[in-house]
Order: sequence, then structure tokens, then C-alpha cells
Amino acid sequence: MVGIISAAVVALLVTLIGTRFWIRFLERRAYGQFIRSDGPTEHHVKRGTPTMGGVVLIIAVVAGYAVSHLVMWSLPSISGVLLLGLLLALGLVGFTDDWIKISRSRSRGLGSWAKLALQIGVGVIFAVLALLFPAYRYGNMVTPASTAISLLRDIPWLTVGPVVAVIFMVLLITGFSNGTNLTDGLDGLLTGSAAMVFLAYGVVNVWQGNQICGGPRITPDTEAMCYVVRNPGDLAIIAVAIAAALFGFLWWNARPAKIFLGDTGSLAIGGAVAGMAILTRTELLVLVIGFIFVLEAFSVIAQVGFFKLTKGRRLLKMAPLHHHFEMLGWQEVTVVIRFWIIAGLSVIAGIGLFYAEWVVGL
Amino acid sequence: MVGIISAAVVALLVTLIGTRFWIRFLERRAYGQFIRSDGPTEHHVKRGTPTMGGVVLIIAVVAGYAVSHLVMWSLPSISGVLLLGLLLALGLVGFTDDWIKISRSRSRGLGSWAKLALQIGVGVIFAVLALLFPAYRYGNMVTPASTAISLLRDIPWLTVGPVVAVIFMVLLITGFSNGTNLTDGLDGLLTGSAAMVFLAYGVVNVWQGNQICGGPRITPDTEAMCYVVRNPGDLAIIAVAIAAALFGFLWWNARPAKIFLGDTGSLAIGGAVAGMAILTRTELLVLVIGFIFVLEAFSVIAQVGFFKLTKGRRLLKMAPLHHHFEMLGWQEVTVVIRFWIIAGLSVIAGIGLFYAEWVVGL
Repeated sequence: MVGIISAAVVALLVTLIGTRFWIRFLERRAYGQFIRSDGPTEHHVKRGTPTMGGVVLIIAVVAGYAVSHLVMWSLPSISGVLLLGLLLALGLVGFTDDWIKISRSRSRGLGSWAKLALQIGVGVIFAVLALLFPAYRYGNMVTPASTAISLLRDIPWLTVGPVVAVIFMVLLITGFSNGTNLTDGLDGLLTGSAAMVFLAYGVVNVWQGNQICGGPRITPDTEAMCYVVRNPGDLAIIAVAIAAALFGFLWWNARPAKIFLGDTGSLAIGGAVAGMAILTRTELLVLVIGFIFVLEAFSVIAQVGFFKLTKGRRLLKMAPLHHHFEMLGWQEVTVVIRFWIIAGLSVIAGIGLFYAEWVVGL
Repeated sequence: MVGIISAAVVALLVTLIGTRFWIRFLERRAYGQFIRSDGPTEHHVKRGTPTMGGVVLIIAVVAGYAVSHLVMWSLPSISGVLLLGLLLALGLVGFTDDWIKISRSRSRGLGSWAKLALQIGVGVIFAVLALLFPAYRYGNMVTPASTAISLLRDIPWLTVGPVVAVIFMVLLITGFSNGTNLTDGLDGLLTGSAAMVFLAYGVVNVWQGNQICGGPRITPDTEAMCYVVRNPGDLAIIAVAIAAALFGFLWWNARPAKIFLGDTGSLAIGGAVAGMAILTRTELLVLVIGFIFVLEAFSVIAQVGFFKLTKGRRLLKMAPLHHHFEMLGWQEVTVVIRFWIIAGLSVIAGIGLFYAEWVVGL
């Protein structure tokens, strides 16, 4: 509890205060965003807004986590280190992308295949490491991730073995980091939605920590519904730290955005969402909790697929989905707030499902 | 659980779909809002936007509650009926106010003393009724409200007796309904903040229901931290129904607002916040959970007090607080989103406090 609170407060303060200085630093060096020339024309006025806000975000999360462990005088857990590693590694991929854009003054950074290859590489390393490091936790031998596909916990008849499990994890990581990358197209849209998603993962982790199999809070009544997980307490700290950092960043990222997350932020966030799902063993539930990212990614796939299939017709006026509604004449903020409502309802539905299963055993 | 879900789905759909028709109906009759002539000048363009969105909101909550009890085939509880009664009665006070504005085409409705008197009257009736109807619940004799002031549960050394308790409850009800009324000055500001507050009360009620003193989930370990409350399950249904209705309404109320809550909505919401605090026995905690409303109300009191004390100097450029920031040059949406962040953080702090007390016993 003290750990969660100290991480949250530190992460919040770092983005709330630090972002202001980061904006000033970037502006002084004239590191602005180059807006895609194929986006809605109204977005062209955003040219020059500083980007790479993800740098402050990542620093805030790491600082929150570090302070929290100093306060508790405890060592980081394997799961915590893995998740932060994933956040950092994908943040670095994004940073490379952002950096190429800035230094070469163009709107394209890394080639899309190069970016995907790096995401897959990071994903494979994370997935393989997450299947190692077994340890006894309350009488169960647990690795950070599992070799089963999970919904609300591991699905026994979907124990697919390490190879398929790694492939599935890599799919989740690349899928979500591209989903958040695509969602990050309107002021505050990704920041606000992701904050809700990580709050949900804070709740999931705290709950799993309380109801961990063999743990001190398990009674004969609740035994059947316990969770086999590794380090939920430490993951709760990270989830809440990310949520708090996002709230603080949203202060500056809300319309009119003074700074963008950049690929540094959006790839890191997407990776962390997938990582949370993998480590809490809620890999299919994350499709509900993070529905907005799934929807945005799917809108692009559907648009491209439809275009190819019909040899030139368009399903949406513009993909990703948020641009479609802008083209329909909705104001940018209206799209953002309505998408937040959808994100909020998805998060509530996901948490509801998670808790309902525990109560009624589905 | 089924009760909560069905209430939420119904309430959400009613505001999401119903508000569209209500807007069309009001527009056809040319029932628009008259904007205060002393507000920021940019707000004058809002003249003519339909108001009384609170009507759909209240219908949605009642419909959600009714359907939920039909689905569960159970009778309403005393606490549930009292809370809905408070919502309806204050909604009616607000409706009278809105109606006078519309029918007489002026921006002032009820005189401020008449409005306050009606709020106090409704508050007294609610408070007195809430102290009656004792019943045994798991071996404790419980009335919907208590004669003690409460923080996270009743404070034993603040058992003040029925008269002071009623006065305190009336203070909370009038204070919060004025606070929400004042907060309702920017597109979506009150709707979004209140949605978070009621979600929090959904959590509080579900948790109290699980940990109710003498209840089936109480173990010797958790006995000391149990809650003496009445009908938490039914209050959870109402809290979640209100949150869901607000989310649906926000779809239309987000900038650029197609409709406002009006006093019908804002007074009803404020009353319901105070009512939830009273019935869940978290009367002082609500100052944290609903901090944004406290802040807005306090900004007006401070402004007026300072003005009188200094014989003409102003503390803020304009009260309530949100107008002050607009005068500082923030865009309306920026103020809204930043105030939402403050509201969200307050809600999280409140829930955190509530749960932390249960875990560590403070």
C-alpha cells in the first residue's frame, strides 16, 4: 500500500512538473513534430508541437518504481523488472523512430518493416525471459508468464507449450504497441485511455495479490477461485505508477496539446499493456480492457483489407477510426471525449467480468 | 452482480439513445438555455443550447433501477428508495428553476433564497426518514443513516444524536447540491467528474456489501474492519446506474455540448452524492471523493468573502474557479480536462484511503 502510494505520487509529480521543463527544452532546440501529410488538413497547424513526451513518462515510471522500493526497502521482483524492461526497450525503439524524424526533419522515421522487426525482437526476448525464472510462491512453482493462453486466469485446455506461447505473446506485444501507436493521433486520446487501462491493471494486480493461491487471505471458500501469479504486488506498483504518470502527462497533453507522447511514449505504453496482460494472465481479457486500442488497430486492418479486396473502395473516410469521425465533421475534442467514454466503458466491462468471475465462478 | 449489470446497461442505453430524442424535442419547442450575462463573454454563443438534460438522466437511473429489480425479482430497499427520492426531489427543485427560466425567458429562475429553502426542506425530510426504519441486519439493528458523523465508517466519539446529525446531513445535501450546481458551468465538466464519483461509490458499496458486519464473508481476521451499513447491495446498483447514465449523457454533453444538465440535473446529482455519503457512512470521506465540488463551492465562498472583507478586491478573476482559469486564457476544454484530472485523482485518493484503512486499519 505504501509502495503503491509512493510510486503514484512520485510518478505523478515527475510528469506534472517535469513535462513543463521538457517542453521548454525541446522548444528551445526546435524539436517539433512533423505531422503526417496524409492526415486531416486541420492537423497541419500542429506542426512544431514538441514530441517525445514519452521520455518524461518513462522516467516518471522508473523514478516512481525506484522510490517505492527505497521507501519499502525491498528488492525489485522479476516480473517488475521484466515489465519495466519491456517498457524501456519499446520506448527506445520509439525514440529511435522519433529521433530520425526530428534529425532528418521528415514525418517518416524508421521504415515500417524495421520498426516491426524491432518490436518482434523485443517481444521475443521478453516472452522467452518471462517463461524462465521459476520460483516457489505459496507452494506453487510459478514463472512470470505461463505456457497457457489466459482469459481471467490460465485456461487449462489452452496449455499450448512454450513455442506457441512465445508466438502468442509476441503477437500481443506487437499488436498492442501498434494499436496504441495508431490511437495516438488526437490530443490526449491515447494518454487518457491508457491511464484508465493501467488503473484497471492496478486493481487486477491488487486483487490477485489478495487472492493469490496458497496466500494468507485464502479461505476454504475462496480456494477454488485463487490466482496463480507471480509478483502481483510489484506489478500493481508499476501499473499505478504508469497510470499516475499518464494523468500528470495528460495535464499538458490535453487539447491544445503542448507536447505529444511520440512513438517513444505510444510504443512503450502499448508494450506495457500487453506485458501486464501476459504477467497477470489475462491475455484475452485485455482485448476487452484495452478494447479501444483493438478497435483502432482493427479499423486500419479493415480499411486496408477492404481497399485491396474491392480494388480501391474505402470502408472509412479515413483510418484509423478517430480520423473517420473527424471527417464526418465531429470536432477533435468531441471525438476524444467520446472515445474516452468507450475506453472507460470497456475498462469497466473488463473489470466487471474479472470480478464477476471471482464472485460467481462464471 | 446481475442487478448491477442490468441497471448499468439500461441506464447507459437510456441516456445514450434517449438524450438524442430529448434534444430534438426541446429544439423543436425552442427551449434553450439563457446564459448568465455575468459569465465569460465567450459563453454567450451557447445561448439557445437545450437544457434540462437532467430529465433524461433521472429517467435513466429510475429505469435502470426498476429493470434491475425486475430482473432479480426483488423488492427495492429502504435506502435505495430514500436515495432515489432525494434524487427525484432535488431534480424537481431544479426542474422548477429551469422551467421558470425557460417559460419567462430569463437567466434567473427561482430566487436564491427560495431555492435554498427548498433544498433544506428536501434535505430535512430525507435526513429524518433516513434515521427511521430500523431493522436487523446480520444481528445489528441498523437504520439507513446514523446519528454519528462518519469518515470511513461511523466515528464512535462523534455520535452526536439525531438533531445534530440531521443538521449535518442537511448541510451536506445543500452544500453538495450547490457545489455540483456551481461546477456545472463548462461543457461536460460536472457530467464527467460526477461519473467518476459515482463509480467510486459503486466500489464502496460493493465492498461494504462484501464486508458487512456479521455477513457471510466476514472471517475472524476481518471482523474488526467490518461495516455497519444498510442495503449496500441496492445502493451499489443505484451508484453504478447513475455513473452509467452520466457516461451516456456525456456523449452528448461533451464539447460542443448539444444539451446541458440544467439545474434539474446538477441539483439531483449533488443531492445523490451527499445521499450516498450519508447512507454509506462516509460523510467526511466524500470531501475527498467529491473534492472538485468542494473546491468549486469554496472558490465562490472565498471570492465573496474576500470581496466583502477587502471592500471590493477580488481573489479570483472570476468565480467559480473554472471561470478564473478561462479568464487566464486557458481554452474551455483544457480547463475541463484538467479539472477532470483533479476529480479523478481525488476519487482515486478517496478510494485508496477507504481501502487502505480496511487493509492496515489505519
